[in-house]
Amino acid sequence: MSSQIANTARPSSAKVFTLVKRFEGLPKETDLKLEEEELPPLKDGEFLAEAVYLSVDPYMRGQSARLEFGETFIGSQVAKIIESKNPKFPVGIHVVGEFGWRTHTISTGEKKPRDFAGVWLIPDFGELPLSLALGMLGMPGNTAHFGLLELCQPKPGETVVVTGAGGAVGSTVGQIAKIKGCKVIGVAGSDEKGKWLMEDLGFDHFINYKTDDVRQKLKEYAPNGVDCYFDNVGGEISNTIMSSMNTFGRISVCGAISASNEKSTPKASIVQLLLVGHELKMRGFLVNRWIKRWFEGIEQNKTWIQEGKLKYRETVTEGFENMPKAFIDMFNGVNFGKAIVKV
Amino acid sequence: MSSQIANTARPSSAKVFTLVKRFEGLPKETDLKLEEEELPPLKDGEFLAEAVYLSVDPYMRGQSARLEFGETFIGSQVAKIIESKNPKFPVGIHVVGEFGWRTHTISTGEKKPRDFAGVWLIPDFGELPLSLALGMLGMPGNTAHFGLLELCQPKPGETVVVTGAGGAVGSTVGQIAKIKGCKVIGVAGSDEKGKWLMEDLGFDHFINYKTDDVRQKLKEYAPNGVDCYFDNVGGEISNTIMSSMNTFGRISVCGAISASNEKSTPKASIVQLLLVGHELKMRGFLVNRWIKRWFEGIEQNKTWIQEGKLKYRETVTEGFENMPKAFIDMFNGVNFGKAIVKV
Repeated sequence: MSSQIANTARPSSAKVFTLVKRFEGLPKETDLKLEEEELPPLKDGEFLAEAVYLSVDPYMRGQSARLEFGETFIGSQVAKIIESKNPKFPVGIHVVGEFGWRTHTISTGEKKPRDFAGVWLIPDFGELPLSLALGMLGMPGNTAHFGLLELCQPKPGETVVVTGAGGAVGSTVGQIAKIKGCKVIGVAGSDEKGKWLMEDLGFDHFINYKTDDVRQKLKEYAPNGVDCYFDNVGGEISNTIMSSMNTFGRISVCGAISASNEKSTPKASIVQLLLVGHELKMRGFLVNRWIKRWFEGIEQNKTWIQEGKLKYRETVTEGFENMPKAFIDMFNGVNFGKAIVKV
Repeated sequence: MSSQIANTARPSSAKVFTLVKRFEGLPKETDLKLEEEELPPLKDGEFLAEAVYLSVDPYMRGQSARLEFGETFIGSQVAKIIESKNPKFPVGIHVVGEFGWRTHTISTGEKKPRDFAGVWLIPDFGELPLSLALGMLGMPGNTAHFGLLELCQPKPGETVVVTGAGGAVGSTVGQIAKIKGCKVIGVAGSDEKGKWLMEDLGFDHFINYKTDDVRQKLKEYAPNGVDCYFDNVGGEISNTIMSSMNTFGRISVCGAISASNEKSTPKASIVQLLLVGHELKMRGFLVNRWIKRWFEGIEQNKTWIQEGKLKYRETVTEGFENMPKAFIDMFNGVNFGKAIVKV
């Protein structure tokens, strides 16, 4: 078939970030390199997608260990189809693709072995920005949605604690727990985030893990014990929260951002005694477990946003060349809600 | 009512072990003191029970932290009713009671707040010894039975790993997993135990955590990955086993005997990254969760023993005064199967 081309200049090359050095602890800008890559003519079945928004997420640090040097660094983006020889992906539409850190991508739209969700067409967001397909109406939103509702099964009146509460996932978890009628305690690392969580997002309490006595604050804020814990951080803070949990409490383990600035897996007091003593259920998950319910999660979160029950916030960094900075800032807790790069 | 008295001399006092010093790491004989306690006449509703077998179990170390100095040390015993003013507990029958480390006990038979299971009448064991009511046909047997079957739900063909495999609970777990058609790998601390587990109990493989490279042995013995893990030990070994687990693997956490010889909770690499990466489900439990199914577990285990599918072994220490020694020996891994003291 003949190529369908948009009314924009078709670039001859893509900008691409490749991995040149393994991360040791926190990523450094020099671990990644900005390169140019030629864009050959499309073959039948292919399309050319132009990045509009790119995502930086905590999971990328760990997943990058699977990359070869010189490979495009991993990640999702919202991209616009600007040329196409694939009728399923016509020019002008927007997709989410795990294309990596690159401005332009030639793809067939098929799922690659490493992909979480593969390439998906963004459903009708109404008035909402397309960047949400990387946040509350995409992978992080579904992570919060299914990770909390399926694994913690919070009931009205129960107390839910979420760590990493100021991030894309944590801030959504707390709000969904509020929608479900729970008391919500958010844990994060700055009082400014605490103010946002309580005043704008309706969290009941906030604990600053850097300055507060977490154990004491939990006694104060959760006098009847903690029923559900959504764990984004791991480490000793998680143990302290687990020791405040009621019998048969449920823990959904999403990640361990506390491990991010360590060179090897950090140590903490063993969890087994807490699990036995409080008879806890602790489950780790990857969001693609619910891939068949992907659009169910997105539609529900969208409805809640439109009803004013879920509020999103994005920390947007401008310019593709600033991706490493946006990525590193996230581990330093600079972002409120979802960290996004706008090309 | 008038007292029903057995044809044996009714003692005027009981021998009792009381706690005189908190354990620091492993218990020491001097942490406990042997005393005499007067036995007053029975009131209506009471009975006098004489210990026949007493139990030493790993859980006692942790639970002892709740005791006051001078209190009778905790524990279960098989006891014979030798005097009674309670028609529900006639002279001559045997009960299991959480009476503590004492030769004679006056009780109403009612459950005390701290009791796991309260006082229970031993059902018909046929030819089997009554001491099993403290082992495979009692609390440890039910711990293995329900802890494995309910929380791990092992399926035929799956691979099950159990740590503390040479103990009362672990040796039963492995055999029940075999009954359910699984491949079973036992982990313990001596090759003599390994020989027993494999040659007598039918375990498929044995790993000596003191001398083997656990990670390497797991690769060899579980080339298709581990599906279920029954965790008696906690600590770094548990992490190594978890890193060998298949996606959606199930972990039943029974205890953390690795913590027993430490003064405070030991540290190990955090589990959260393993839980996420392998999407594991990890649950801690106390066996009284299944108190309503107590005799169901005992009857099933008894049937399996009578069918030759479950084999028990007891390490019996003679003499009430040797209870502290039997207790300490257990933490040093001296026992094969259930550690029992015969009065």
